[in-house]
Amino acid sequence: MREAYQSDLRHIVDDLLDMADLVGTALEAATTSLLEGDLGLAERVIAADTHIDERQVELDTKAVELLARQAPVAGDLRLLVAALRMSSSLERMGDLCAHVALVARRTHPELAVPARHREQIARMSELGGAALREAAQVIADRDLALAAQVEKDDEELDDLMLEVSREISRGEGYTNGQVVDLTLLIRFYERIGDHAVSLVRRVGFLVTGDSLDTLNERVDVSEF
Amino acid sequence: MREAYQSDLRHIVDDLLDMADLVGTALEAATTSLLEGDLGLAERVIAADTHIDERQVELDTKAVELLARQAPVAGDLRLLVAALRMSSSLERMGDLCAHVALVARRTHPELAVPARHREQIARMSELGGAALREAAQVIADRDLALAAQVEKDDEELDDLMLEVSREISRGEGYTNGQVVDLTLLIRFYERIGDHAVSLVRRVGFLVTGDSLDTLNERVDVSEF
Repeated sequence: MREAYQSDLRHIVDDLLDMADLVGTALEAATTSLLEGDLGLAERVIAADTHIDERQVELDTKAVELLARQAPVAGDLRLLVAALRMSSSLERMGDLCAHVALVARRTHPELAVPARHREQIARMSELGGAALREAAQVIADRDLALAAQVEKDDEELDDLMLEVSREISRGEGYTNGQVVDLTLLIRFYERIGDHAVSLVRRVGFLVTGDSLDTLNERVDVSEF
Repeated sequence: MREAYQSDLRHIVDDLLDMADLVGTALEAATTSLLEGDLGLAERVIAADTHIDERQVELDTKAVELLARQAPVAGDLRLLVAALRMSSSLERMGDLCAHVALVARRTHPELAVPARHREQIARMSELGGAALREAAQVIADRDLALAAQVEKDDEELDDLMLEVSREISRGEGYTNGQVVDLTLLIRFYERIGDHAVSLVRRVGFLVTGDSLDTLNERVDVSEF
């Protein structure tokens, strides 16, 4: 019984890591569909988001069942509480990947990202993916050593968002539609970084018992 | 002891309602600062967001303590789990209000919202505030009768976001900076509506035991 309980707790962590894998795959595919104008790939990313949503519902249900059946305390309780928050962040990251693909689908056959911003958007996607992989590592090992790297990636993401938005605001030769799309896209990538930071902060709660973080954005959109 | 526990559970609900009040006040003030170009008011909204963040940390801490001490089951457990999700949504709604005020502060003394969009933005703020008040009512009464109205307000918010974004994309006489700001602003208001919907869905979980919702956006940004 006790063993079954411990293995249930391990499965919660495995489920979080599976969700993180799904989101990482969605992020790469969404960015490829965006930058290459690959409509079929965009459609697949959009369709696949329902799987991530379903995984969250399954994970939440398991976690609530364990809370009810096992009345966990201390670290086990913190794990389940943190998992319920982390599953929300991962699900939301999946939504944001789908949003990127939705922009790719809507603008097809045009490319939503003008050539002068391709590298910046590709880099934002890389940073989001790196932050997500590092956060998953932190979840798997409960080792906060990598947490600082996640924050660093997120800061670079924030800086890129501000850089792109300033270039747009001061630049010429954009249609209004391009400005709308780019503004949304850089915000989607920046939010993915914020959620990665919140994931590692929740591992901090899990390990140290410090308060659950509030998901604040360090970037001040007023700097745009 | 049992009585103390029941009163602790009631306090969790009271804390959620207090957070909802703070967010509602922040939303009205943020929109006033935006539409009137009131820099002092914008500063106060930005500063006040830390209070909402602190309230979330207090509420989360209480909820986790109750989970540990009381090992609640059934409805009491669902209340605490739902409260942990609802506090996240309310804290995020507070961030979004602060983001509106940050745009007001950055653009001051200019107005971020061109005259032709003032009424639409004012209406989006009204709808967000109404959805929030209705969601608080649903939380207070555990009565899902109002839930449909929250969804209705959110749909009108989604429609307004699409209307404004289409007008921007097809319109003329905007600076790129105005397009960036308007795109962010309508997204902030639309997200406030989404979070109000997620609040009432979590009351649904609390009352019925159905799965915790995933916070999906019904609006498809690809319709922009």
